[in-house]
Formats: sequence, C-alpha cells, structure tokens
Amino acid sequence: MSHPHPELGPPPPLAPGALRVIPLGGLGEIGRNMTVFEHEGRLLIVDCGVLFPEDHHPGVDLILPDFEPIRDRLDDVEALVLTHGHEDHIGAVPYLLRERPDIPLVGSQLTLALVDAKLREHRLHDVPRHVVRDRQRVAFGPFDLEFVAVNHSIPDALAVAIRTAAGLVLHTGDFKMDQLPLDGRLTDLRAFARLGEEGVDLFLVDSTNAEMPGFTTSERDITPVIDGIFTRAERRIIVACFASHVHRVQQVLDAAAKHGRKVAYVGRSMVRNMSVATELGFLRVPPGLVVDVKELDNYEPHEIVLISTGSQGEPLSALSRIAGRDHPQIRVEPGDTVVLASSLIPGNENAVFRVINGLTRWGANVIHKGNALVHVSGHASAGELLYAYNIVKPRNVLPVHGEIRHMRANADLAAATGVPRERIVLAEDGVVVDLVDGVARIAGKVDCGYVFVDGSTVGDITESSLKDRRILGEEGFISVIVVVDSVTGKVTGGPEIKARGFAEDDSVFDPVRPLIQEALDRAGRDGIDDTYQLQQLIRRTVGKWVSDSYRRRPMIIPVVVEI
Amino acid sequence: MSHPHPELGPPPPLAPGALRVIPLGGLGEIGRNMTVFEHEGRLLIVDCGVLFPEDHHPGVDLILPDFEPIRDRLDDVEALVLTHGHEDHIGAVPYLLRERPDIPLVGSQLTLALVDAKLREHRLHDVPRHVVRDRQRVAFGPFDLEFVAVNHSIPDALAVAIRTAAGLVLHTGDFKMDQLPLDGRLTDLRAFARLGEEGVDLFLVDSTNAEMPGFTTSERDITPVIDGIFTRAERRIIVACFASHVHRVQQVLDAAAKHGRKVAYVGRSMVRNMSVATELGFLRVPPGLVVDVKELDNYEPHEIVLISTGSQGEPLSALSRIAGRDHPQIRVEPGDTVVLASSLIPGNENAVFRVINGLTRWGANVIHKGNALVHVSGHASAGELLYAYNIVKPRNVLPVHGEIRHMRANADLAAATGVPRERIVLAEDGVVVDLVDGVARIAGKVDCGYVFVDGSTVGDITESSLKDRRILGEEGFISVIVVVDSVTGKVTGGPEIKARGFAEDDSVFDPVRPLIQEALDRAGRDGIDDTYQLQQLIRRTVGKWVSDSYRRRPMIIPVVVEI
Repeated sequence: MSHPHPELGPPPPLAPGALRVIPLGGLGEIGRNMTVFEHEGRLLIVDCGVLFPEDHHPGVDLILPDFEPIRDRLDDVEALVLTHGHEDHIGAVPYLLRERPDIPLVGSQLTLALVDAKLREHRLHDVPRHVVRDRQRVAFGPFDLEFVAVNHSIPDALAVAIRTAAGLVLHTGDFKMDQLPLDGRLTDLRAFARLGEEGVDLFLVDSTNAEMPGFTTSERDITPVIDGIFTRAERRIIVACFASHVHRVQQVLDAAAKHGRKVAYVGRSMVRNMSVATELGFLRVPPGLVVDVKELDNYEPHEIVLISTGSQGEPLSALSRIAGRDHPQIRVEPGDTVVLASSLIPGNENAVFRVINGLTRWGANVIHKGNALVHVSGHASAGELLYAYNIVKPRNVLPVHGEIRHMRANADLAAATGVPRERIVLAEDGVVVDLVDGVARIAGKVDCGYVFVDGSTVGDITESSLKDRRILGEEGFISVIVVVDSVTGKVTGGPEIKARGFAEDDSVFDPVRPLIQEALDRAGRDGIDDTYQLQQLIRRTVGKWVSDSYRRRPMIIPVVVEI
Repeated sequence: MSHPHPELGPPPPLAPGALRVIPLGGLGEIGRNMTVFEHEGRLLIVDCGVLFPEDHHPGVDLILPDFEPIRDRLDDVEALVLTHGHEDHIGAVPYLLRERPDIPLVGSQLTLALVDAKLREHRLHDVPRHVVRDRQRVAFGPFDLEFVAVNHSIPDALAVAIRTAAGLVLHTGDFKMDQLPLDGRLTDLRAFARLGEEGVDLFLVDSTNAEMPGFTTSERDITPVIDGIFTRAERRIIVACFASHVHRVQQVLDAAAKHGRKVAYVGRSMVRNMSVATELGFLRVPPGLVVDVKELDNYEPHEIVLISTGSQGEPLSALSRIAGRDHPQIRVEPGDTVVLASSLIPGNENAVFRVINGLTRWGANVIHKGNALVHVSGHASAGELLYAYNIVKPRNVLPVHGEIRHMRANADLAAATGVPRERIVLAEDGVVVDLVDGVARIAGKVDCGYVFVDGSTVGDITESSLKDRRILGEEGFISVIVVVDSVTGKVTGGPEIKARGFAEDDSVFDPVRPLIQEALDRAGRDGIDDTYQLQQLIRRTVGKWVSDSYRRRPMIIPVVVEI
C-alpha cells in the first residue's frame, strides 16, 4: 500500500495510452471533492465541490479546490461530471466556470437543476448542460462515460464508469447501499457486477464511513420513529434537516399527512430546494399539505409542522434564530417538539448543543440523533464497502472522499477482500496517480493548496492572513502610534495607544507609556531615527512589558508616521 | 417543574431555620462546579472547579465561577468540601483561596493530594485541610456532614450528606454506579438507602449522562479490549488518556506487565498525578515496570508502552506533538499502535481528528472510542439514575452538573420515579433555591457571570473584549492613522493604513487612500476638526469602501493623532 510521500516531485509527462488521475480535493478531507482525469491530452473532471471551513480557518466562508494545476489547460476539459447535488460536489462549479464559462456540465436531472439555481445566483447563463440518467452511455472526447444509479442522502445520485484506452475506471461518487430505499432506487449492483465482469482497472471508492463497522441503517427505519414523535406531540412540531435531504422531507410530509398537520418550509435553501424537488417529481406532495409560513396563524399548534434549515446550529439559520427567540415569525413555546433529523458534522457540536439548550430552556422537547433514531448516514459503512469490493473485484483501488483515517480504513477493507496491498493507492490531494498497463502507481505531486472565499474575494486570503486572524482572535492587539518629524528625526507626537480584545480599560496602558517614552528618548540620544528600527524598539518594549505583567502575547503593531 | 426565569429578582433574606442553595457554577454547563449552602448565617461550599473555554471564548485559558455573590461573606464560610480531584471540581480552589487563604478544605486523601499539588503551583501554603473518608461524619458550624463513597473516573470520590435544622441534603457529586468496579470500591447504595430511610429533603444529582439510555458500561469491559490490542501490536504502543484516570492507567499497567512491556509516562500532568497516585497506593505498580522516558532507547519497540496526555487533541500536549513529529523524544513510526482511551469532549472533535489523521499519515494504527471500546464514561446513565431515585426517594430534587438539556432529562427521570413535578427544581447558575419547611422553591436570582482567566489576569477580560476578539479573529482589522495639527486643525500626516488578517498585500488599499483624502479635505473645508468626528468620517468612508468592494466587515480603527 502506498503512503503519501511529502517528498514527491512533479510527475513526468504522461505515457501515451495511459490515464492520469489528479485529485484536487476530497482526498484528505470531507469536502471540496474534485478529481481530474487526463488521457491523450484531454481532461475530464468529476465533481467540483466546496469544503466548509473549520475553526482554524476563521472568517473564511468557503474553501475551494485549487484550480492552479489545470488553470492553463482549461481548454482541454471535455466535460465536468457532477455525481450528485450536494455542496461538497457542486458548490465550486460557479468558481470554475468563471475561468471558462462553456465547460459542459454533465449530471442527472435533479443534480443539474440544483446547479442551475446556483449558476443563476452567480449570474452565469448559457452554460452547456447534458442531463444523463443511469445506464446511459455517452462519450466526451476520449472519455466514454457510463452512469450507474447509486443511493445517497439526496435523490438521483450517480456513479460514473470511465472507459478509455487505458482501461475501465469506476468512480462511486458518494454512495450507500440501502437495500430498501424509500424511493425504490437501489444502488445498481447489477451494473457494478457487469462492470466487474468486464474488468474494473481502477476503483475510486467513497471512504466517508469506512471506519464504521457493519451496515448503514435503512432510511426506512426512521419512519416509525417519526410516526411515534407525531403520535406523542401535542403541540407544534419543528423538524430541522439538511435542505437537500428530499427523502427525509418526504418522510415528514407523509407523517404530517397521516396525522392531519399542515407543513411549512422555513429557511431560504429549504424553500428553494423543495420547490425544485417538487417540480421535478422527486418530492410527492399531497395537494393542500404545504402552506406558506405566513398562513400558520390560521392553524392551531397541533395542526402544524415546520421543516427548517439549521440542523448544524448555523448561527444565522432559522432554527438558531428560533432557539434564541430571534425569529421574526416563529416563537418557540413550552410543549413544542423539535426534531434535529440530521447528522452532527464534527466541529459543529458546540453550536448544535447551544441550539438544543436554547430550545430546551424555552420548554421545548428536543429530539436528536443522540436520543432517537432520527437520522441515518448517506454513506456506505464497512460492511457495504466489502460487498462493493467483492462484486467489482477491482485490479487497483484508490480510496477517495475522506480524511486520511477514513481512506486508510477503506484501504484496509479493500485489502481484506483480496486486493493486493501494492494495488491499493493511498493518496492525498495533489498526489498524481497514473494507470499504465493496468497498474496504478503514484507518479508525482502537483502543488494544490486551499483556496479561501471570503466575502466577494477568492484566493486573496492566504494562510498568513489566517495566522494573523488566529493571533488577533486569541489575544487581540496593541497598536502604538508615534509621529516623527522626517527632517529632524524627532518624535513629535504620541505615543498613542489603541488596543482591542486586550483589556476593557485603557488605563492598563498607563505603566507602559513612560517605558515607551524612555525607549524613544534613548533612541533619540543614540541617533536612531530609522522607521523600522523605531518600530522594532516599540515592539520589543511593549512586548516585554505585556509578557512580564500579564503573561499574554497580543499582536503588537507599532506605527511610525513621518510628517 | 420550575423553569429558570430570566425575570427573577434578588432573593429575600433567608427565613430562620431554612437552608439556601446558591449554585455559582455547573448548572447550565459541564464544568466550574460550585454550590454554596447557607444556614443560620453561615456558608458551606461544595466544589470549586473550572470550566474549559469553548470556541466563543477565544484566547481564554480558564473560566471560573463568579465569587461576587459571596465575596463580602467569605468570613462566613465554614468549609469547602471537594467531592473529587477533577479540574472541574477543584481547579478554581487557588483563586478562591487568594481571596481568603484560610478556608478549611475538606476531601478524601487523593482529592486533597491533587489539590496540594495545585496549591504549591500557586504558592499557597498552610491552607487548613481535613482528610475525610466515606461513612465519616464531621460538623463544620451548623453543617453536619457525612461522606459517602461513590465511583467515578477518578478514585476516592465522595458524595456528601449535609444535615442542618432545615433537613437532610444529599449531593452526589460526580458519580456512576459501576457494579464491578476495578478497585472494588462501589457507590455506597446502602448508605444512599439509609439516608433515604432517614428522609432526604433535597437531592442534588449529577445530570451529565441523564440523556444516555441504559447503563454506563463497566470499566472492567475495557480490559479484554486492551488485552487484544496488546496481543496484536507488533511495535510500540502509545496510550493517551486523561491524566487523572488512575483506573485506566492501572489497566494499561496490568496489560503491559502481562505482555512484557515497560511503561513510561509522557506529559507533565501524567507524570505528576501518577506519582501522587502511586505514593498513596491508588496505583499498584509492579517493581521495575515503569521507566523514565529517557531510558526507552534501551528497549525494542515491541517492549514499550507510553502513557501520554493529549487525548483531547490539545495543541501543546505530548500526543499532538508526536502526531506532528514535533516531540523532542518520541517519533511515531509506521506500525506503532496509538490508543485514545478517553471520551471525546464536545468541541474537541476537530482537534482530536487532526491528531488521529496526523498519526495515521505516519503509518500508525489508531484505535479510539469511534472504532473500539477503549473508554467508558464516569457518569451515571439514565438507568443508574433511576436506581438512585428509587433508593433515595427524595422529597425534592435539584438536578446539577449539566447543560440545561441534561438537567431537563434528569428532571424527567426523577419525575418518572414518582417525585412530584412541583418538587423538582430546574435552576441555572445564580438561581437561588430555598428549602423551607421541607419544600424546595426558587427564591430569586443573584448575578453571576463568567470570570475569565487569561494569562495572569483574572476577570480583566470581559464579554466585550471577547466580542472584539471574535470580530478580529473572523475579519481582521484596518487601522487608518492621520496626524492633525492641534492648533490649526489641519491634517499634517497620513493617512497611514495598517491592516492585519485582511489581505496579503497592502496595495489593496490604494483605491481607498484618495477616498479618505477626499473626505478629510471636505471636512477641512467644512471646518470639522473634532477628533471624534474625524474618526467617524474615516470609519464610514473605509467601512463603505470595504463593504462595497469586498463584501467584508473587518474592524475599522481610525486613529487621529494630535500634535
């Protein structure tokens, strides 16, 4: 099994007839999935998603894959295949299309409908699009694609088989293998088997749940739990879930219809996505069931279900505002039942528990993953992955979609089914894998970092700005301003001290003012009038004082203004 | 069931013969446990712990209970009872003793030994101390105390019964009811029963795990899992756990002895605590088993176990440094086995997964709570709490130690065993509960906030500084400095622009300089020379520019220096 090698250099030119895989995101993290395939000088991209920032990326709105390794080859791109409509697979599409707006988009009906909404927001029009469905086969340049139905936590997801002269590649996208899916659309294991019979040379497999033993519980097992909640609830019910989880929303709609409650959607993305899903027939809504949130006053609390965004405790979401009694239309009341029918994404725990505590404080009864079976994962657990490996019997395996711990667990599963360790490639973003003569091997590494979106800027914020933010956010800053006469070199104004995030009261700086003055006087006597040297002097003086007096290390920003 | 009422006023004077409970911490959060009891003008304190800050308290080292409500009554304190030696129960003791150094400390042998180490660090000497043991009875002023053995994730933990003329109070401290504890020391349910027969008027009960259905797994069930790990490991084993978890360390020592490996402790608190525990006989160490980390070079990898701190991914801990290959003595190698034998405290997930990914990247095999039974909780689950309620049959219940969601779940359990809802008091920090004539009722509320420790300062950092830090940490700042002649009111220097956490390159500010200049010129023409008005002008100009150009909201700090 190959381990990622930090010392790898750039890959050599690709051998004729071979296939190159360049992962630009999703290998080493859960999110921003993007994989580039190269063959005969042409490129095919599978997925183009965003990563949601963690606490060590303060203030960042989104993280994109780094397009730099293919930036000067965008004209070679034959198509961008989107396996399904989740943000971590489609969220970065508008940013790629900014660089070349006519890349053909290929995906299922629902996937492209969700992309369309996104493109409209970004004012991107006339993007070429190819709606495909499972078992369909279509070629883009040298890439002969076949789509395979898979089930996941959003409808209409597809795996993709890529045939080239170099061999047959199967990329699962995100998938699980629910054997009793709510919509009856199974992961097409007969197609997996047929492709396996033909011979899968490289199998790219979703690693997200590879560490989970056993099998992901069927979506169907949630139905009786939701029914029980509806049976017991005496007042209003609020269900929060992911705005793309059409199956979960369908379950809530069905329960509402059965128990004689009206449903209103709350939250912009929920309203938008459910309108798309209803229009395309993915959501079956009995007439008159769904009402506008403004009409809720016409109903009693026991006649109402709200389906809301905010299941991850996002501060500005509908549910957070309800928990803080800060929502313009909805006030949580004692006896309300709130269901968080979603996973708890690592890093969001504190935010989610704040919402749960807020709701509980107002007397709501809160049901969540921790105390009831109100969510199941959208990803295949270890048991399912073993089925996939045994049905496909791939020649080479590249675990994708996961942190290194997930990919390593997935690699171990492949090995357990008999794939030779040396045919399992463990690679992180930027590590280039070539399939040559039926053998996959690491060929080198391209530079590919995090690209941060902050406000309307893309890529302007770098790791060094984030480091500054981390220091500022932990310790605050002290700025010391002095004015120097550029002719005489004499200090003519200041020191003025401005600080934020350090202390409530500026009088804490009274003891350091004379120290700064003394240092400046000494510099004057020694003939030091260079701006940089004066700044260093101030920085040292204040830094030592603050460390000695407070054992703290705020950012110290000396400013010397020459007049 | 009483709900916390934000509109509560200060409590009236306490009725003669009654008992007052003033929770200063731990009711509404997991941590900084501290409860004050008042009777006949005298005070008894149970526990005095710290809370570890979350992401919305950036840069804060520790959070203390607010001593303000008892600050002018410290001379009335008869004793400070410490139920066990965890930081969230003893961590704030030195800060309280700073205010009155001769408060008598009461606790078990191990608890006071761990407090002693802490007092030495804070240079507090000659603090009066009373070592007590279970079933012992001792009076402090009007408070007649009896101690009851409980089991928890640290040895020598005690519950405390408090008898006064107002009735009998039983405070569980942190506890669980492991029926096969490793050290044979059971939670003394016979004492619980005897006190129940006598009549418990108020029962303060640990809520931490009240949401967990069923029973907390016995510590004993971890033993075969650890044994299996030792059997399979071919190279070095590193076990990370809490530095106070003597039972877990004992299990690792036993496994090491059985499998012929030497043990070294890594991390300052691990070395210190295990030395205390060994000395007092709580840890049984076969001669020659434990060696110094410096001696490890004398052994082969398969002869070594390291027991380390850092199971929560703390950035400066031994394990984090090992994962980052940044530890002076220990280099993780392919084939090493790393066990995180601890819980995953909410909020620490990303940090812990970063450590796991780091270790995995170097080829280590990482075993944790998510993939093996290597940790059990130290707190009673719902099933155990039901036993406790049924054995004690309390007249009144006050759930303690938990967020509101945990206390609410605990209250529901009490109600399920037949405690009348109106005798169950749901109170948060500062909500005062009086026990009068055998009935517990909310009597009012005292102000009690968070007290932040940052560096060597206690209480200087307030919510407003933290708000500044959050803005700085998310968005950075832009500071604009101008120099104004105090006589003429004319701008004679600047605008100088300094920014951090906003952009890499100062040239982004080129477009705003003329806008500032223009605004200042206009102000000059309009005769505006007031410093505050000039600052506002700069703030508005830069704020509008940055919002329009970048859709971002950094902190804007205008500085007008008068010379």
